[in-house]
Amino acid sequence: MAEQLEFYFDFSSPYGYLASFRIDDIAAKHGRSVTWRPYLLGAVFPVSGMKPLVQIPLKNTYSLHDLNRVSRLYNIPFQLPDPFPIPTQAAGRVFYFLDDSDPELAKIFAKAAMTAYFAENVDIRTRETVADIAAKAGGDHEACLAAINDPVYKDRLKNETQTGIDRGAFGSPFVFVDGEPFWGNDRLEMIDAWLERGGW
Amino acid sequence: MAEQLEFYFDFSSPYGYLASFRIDDIAAKHGRSVTWRPYLLGAVFPVSGMKPLVQIPLKNTYSLHDLNRVSRLYNIPFQLPDPFPIPTQAAGRVFYFLDDSDPELAKIFAKAAMTAYFAENVDIRTRETVADIAAKAGGDHEACLAAINDPVYKDRLKNETQTGIDRGAFGSPFVFVDGEPFWGNDRLEMIDAWLERGGW
Repeated sequence: MAEQLEFYFDFSSPYGYLASFRIDDIAAKHGRSVTWRPYLLGAVFPVSGMKPLVQIPLKNTYSLHDLNRVSRLYNIPFQLPDPFPIPTQAAGRVFYFLDDSDPELAKIFAKAAMTAYFAENVDIRTRETVADIAAKAGGDHEACLAAINDPVYKDRLKNETQTGIDRGAFGSPFVFVDGEPFWGNDRLEMIDAWLERGGW
Repeated sequence: MAEQLEFYFDFSSPYGYLASFRIDDIAAKHGRSVTWRPYLLGAVFPVSGMKPLVQIPLKNTYSLHDLNRVSRLYNIPFQLPDPFPIPTQAAGRVFYFLDDSDPELAKIFAKAAMTAYFAENVDIRTRETVADIAAKAGGDHEACLAAINDPVYKDRLKNETQTGIDRGAFGSPFVFVDGEPFWGNDRLEMIDAWLERGGW
């Protein structure tokens, strides 16, 4: 059976959010599925020396314009949330807790959490809010709340982040296709072509 | 008559080099032409706080891999030159000197200079080398040599760079389509779609 694609993203990454709507469909066209791997750009930036979009003069103005343009193109609701960016430990830990027993549920939760943040300006930093979103998606409210403070899921998120960095991921979205790295929402078409041709 | 596309690039930018092979064809498909605007990323980086690709951990490894991948996809000869990146004042001044009387010749020169640098590892920092390339392309060797030290073309390149920054350009390639900004070689397909639909 063909290897799964691996989709690294940060819950606070707008381009990761946009990519989350399309990555599974692109993989499915080619009979492939996708493993989602939330990680923490807050831990990646000190390694790369890069900064969040909004902190980069010129690029910040362009990126906001571009995010609105890309979201219009794909009919994805989007508004830059405030505050932005935010730390996303709570959402990441709940994701891996759900993922352990039900990867599809974890994806539904992730989509709901990013949609809450990027389309409805819901602050997804707090435990209660994240657990509420998880419960609405079909998870157990108390268990999700507990996972956020559980050393097992604290370590899991840290380790997944380190694994991403060790493999060379430095942004969001960052996708591995049979080991081949693709950075950015604007590379989804290239991933599609890569899967179609089996590389080049 | 429809406005021309404006193509900002730095002679030392590999993604600008790759885009230079396709931007005119994409515009021509839609009955449009392209004004080329070399500028100096060395003057842009202090404004944006960004850095050359090779100075960014993780991104440097990815970018080199990606440049080879993209150049294979489009059958464009490419090898990362050494030294890289380089200051490109000489090439930029000759470009604007040629552009004043013959924009098509300026483009032929620009393609030849970038091809020398990115496909043949020719160091295009020196006046002599740049004038040789310009002469081979059809320019006047002595006049090109003189333009490199001419305050008119020194100022011209500075002013074009400042104009690019003032308009929000911060990378290479950076293309304006009727005022709409597009950053990156991987946005050429979106430019194509934008021209096709007349925006969205």
